[in-house]
Amino acid sequence: MNRSKAYVEENKQRFIEELVQILKIPSVSADPAFKDDVIKTAEAIKESLKNAGCTLTEICETPGYPVVYGERIIDESLPTILVYGHYDVQPADPIELWDNPPFEPVIKKTEIHPEGAIFARGACDDKGQMYMHVKALEYMVQNDDLPCNVKFMIEGEEEVGSENLGWFIERNQEKLKNDVILISDTGMIAKDVPSITTGLRGLSYVEVEVTGPNRDLHSGLYGGAVANPINVLSKMIASLTDENNHITIPGFYDKVEELSKEERAKMAEAPFNLEKYKEALDLNDVYGEKGYVTNERNSIRPTLDVNGIWGGYIGEGAKTVIPSKAFAKISMRLVPNQDWREITQLFKTHFENIAPSGVTVEVRPHHGGQGYVTPITGIEYQAANDAYKEVFGKDPIPQRSGGSIPIVSMFEKELGSKTILMGFGLDSDAIHSPNENFGVWNYLKGIETIPFFYKHFTKLKQEETK
Amino acid sequence: MNRSKAYVEENKQRFIEELVQILKIPSVSADPAFKDDVIKTAEAIKESLKNAGCTLTEICETPGYPVVYGERIIDESLPTILVYGHYDVQPADPIELWDNPPFEPVIKKTEIHPEGAIFARGACDDKGQMYMHVKALEYMVQNDDLPCNVKFMIEGEEEVGSENLGWFIERNQEKLKNDVILISDTGMIAKDVPSITTGLRGLSYVEVEVTGPNRDLHSGLYGGAVANPINVLSKMIASLTDENNHITIPGFYDKVEELSKEERAKMAEAPFNLEKYKEALDLNDVYGEKGYVTNERNSIRPTLDVNGIWGGYIGEGAKTVIPSKAFAKISMRLVPNQDWREITQLFKTHFENIAPSGVTVEVRPHHGGQGYVTPITGIEYQAANDAYKEVFGKDPIPQRSGGSIPIVSMFEKELGSKTILMGFGLDSDAIHSPNENFGVWNYLKGIETIPFFYKHFTKLKQEETK
Repeated sequence: MNRSKAYVEENKQRFIEELVQILKIPSVSADPAFKDDVIKTAEAIKESLKNAGCTLTEICETPGYPVVYGERIIDESLPTILVYGHYDVQPADPIELWDNPPFEPVIKKTEIHPEGAIFARGACDDKGQMYMHVKALEYMVQNDDLPCNVKFMIEGEEEVGSENLGWFIERNQEKLKNDVILISDTGMIAKDVPSITTGLRGLSYVEVEVTGPNRDLHSGLYGGAVANPINVLSKMIASLTDENNHITIPGFYDKVEELSKEERAKMAEAPFNLEKYKEALDLNDVYGEKGYVTNERNSIRPTLDVNGIWGGYIGEGAKTVIPSKAFAKISMRLVPNQDWREITQLFKTHFENIAPSGVTVEVRPHHGGQGYVTPITGIEYQAANDAYKEVFGKDPIPQRSGGSIPIVSMFEKELGSKTILMGFGLDSDAIHSPNENFGVWNYLKGIETIPFFYKHFTKLKQEETK
Repeated sequence: MNRSKAYVEENKQRFIEELVQILKIPSVSADPAFKDDVIKTAEAIKESLKNAGCTLTEICETPGYPVVYGERIIDESLPTILVYGHYDVQPADPIELWDNPPFEPVIKKTEIHPEGAIFARGACDDKGQMYMHVKALEYMVQNDDLPCNVKFMIEGEEEVGSENLGWFIERNQEKLKNDVILISDTGMIAKDVPSITTGLRGLSYVEVEVTGPNRDLHSGLYGGAVANPINVLSKMIASLTDENNHITIPGFYDKVEELSKEERAKMAEAPFNLEKYKEALDLNDVYGEKGYVTNERNSIRPTLDVNGIWGGYIGEGAKTVIPSKAFAKISMRLVPNQDWREITQLFKTHFENIAPSGVTVEVRPHHGGQGYVTPITGIEYQAANDAYKEVFGKDPIPQRSGGSIPIVSMFEKELGSKTILMGFGLDSDAIHSPNENFGVWNYLKGIETIPFFYKHFTKLKQEETK
């Protein structure tokens, strides 16, 4: 048994308990009502970094929620790994669909996790996966097995667009200098099929508001005579995709990089069971852009989803009203080489153009970010590949993700280094959904595997610079 | 000055104060939280009928909210007028858009109402208009000016579809026997342009639910790969009307009675200012079915309006979710000779048929009712015409309304008598909207005018039977 595995075995109860304590704090960055809890979580992370072996830890103020910084510099001539994560979590609603309260963690055995899974908002995204790195540091420090320098940058606004991270990075370029950025906020294919995320989609998130009459109206007296903002909003949203689920915004696809037949064939080799995928979601069919399969639609193709819609009377029973306003939150996932700011502008212009007379329309860009692709030829990817290989006994599969971590492309731009996404989550973790959970096995496996990345990256980096 | 006007002048402060007390009770039938208040309002109406001169008053239990019954029979050989109204009110939300709390009535002077208007939920629809009849009875009894028998049937479920009124009427046919039914729950064109509503639209109200995956999903990991119920619901709603705002449900228009060119020309003679109509609602344009003008679109043509829509994350900020479900409340206003149950079935069948694979759809019919047209050749209409003429000095204009009072066609079917709609409301009363109000002038004018209907109807009825 390797040394990190032994350490994990000895300390697993404590590792789980520490994570549970952090999961109890509802650090919901999207909702100002939880402000104090977000701050409290930052302080808890700072404490844990210190206890794990960071010689310097700081709560770094920003115009928004603080960044928690920690470091252990052992030798300036050694490489430096910068670990990024976030201590804020998604809102938990709809709360009534949780089997247990989202901020009262429970460990339950499931079919996928006979060793148990921790159920709580943030269990996987991102507290569980972030805390693996804290415990990996503890292992390396306690066992004199830290081969290089390490820095931690754990922010509190990822779920609301990391608005102030760029501000923080701009002002701390020297402090954050590194050779590679390490992030665990993605998943792997299965417990016995390790994979490394090599691509992330970009994101543009907007809010739209359609206004008809200046007040709610009686739908008998006015029905048929004035524009109903809900009917109009539905038509406008419907028009954004055609019958092939292709997005109709002019210019939208201009910069989309089409993959070659060979690349698509290689992607198709990754293990995937369409029947099980549909079964897990109780779907009679998948649904998406004509001409592409499921794993292309959710990774190498851009999308348009309405994340929320509301207007009119939505309470119990009936109300015969034409509302004054209807609203939607819409987001688009983007692929190389779409530019998220350009796409946001294309959306805004188009949406305003297609508004019929009889209503007025407002488009409010919310946040966004660029996509990213990790080159699998670099030493960063090689080190991660070797780490998984040592622990899992096989090479991980490189896989493009559908998700977005906008700051990754910003990191490369501002700090000049690549990012490696070593995720230990699973699809079934239900991140962003009710009953989010993280397998105890996955959590501990991450803690075990991460130190091997440090080992291999240091080795490869030193060979490179000889 | 006529006698009813003098009596109104003397007693107007008390008339207003009594109505204000009734308006304070939040009798919201749509929401079970207000159950006690609805019952309390029934008791208050019973009391007021007794005080006004009903020799018999009863709270009549039904499977739902009770019907308040009152009568004053002076001579079996005289005609009998049955007054219908409702003591329940629409929900008040969105509460934040009210200038004053909806159940704390205030009287404010406005441009349209320099004599003041009573602002409260139910001020016009229907407590104010219903209470005019109670005070009119008081006048007639106090001044020995009651020419015929009168019965009152005031229900508590009109805003939720009058579900148990048919049950009540079936079991009380003898009790409710009458020569004409009188209702004030509609409006007139302007304070100096009296009108009588001669047509009501039918109604079919349904709720729909679209289900995609069995849980909310991360819109990055799943975006593009599975059906998003909101996107799909939007497409389905959008498809229900074409580019001419013509409803596309197969068979929908089969039984619609087209008006002749002459009838449409006559309708067009009613005073109407399109610019002021748009200005009042801050609209840059009206919007509706091609080939028809505003006052046809809102009265003689059927419609389809989404009254409420919701799904996904609708709180503050952003959440990148594909929701499991999306919902809408949809209602259709119908015209002669559409059958509301048949239309409901046509809608359900069609909506289920157009659902794409990848989602499941549920349509839940909620409530509905037939439309109605009052023949202007009968003595009922004539009596109302003469009543307005005596008080306003001119003939009222017959006008078709866009609104629905489903029980009117049921009354004719079950009790064999016609209904006269003598309304004193105005468009600006904003019924079903925030800041609903009823002009003091209109309220008092109604009390003054109603006794003339009793006088003329009795006279015409007796001439008829000679």
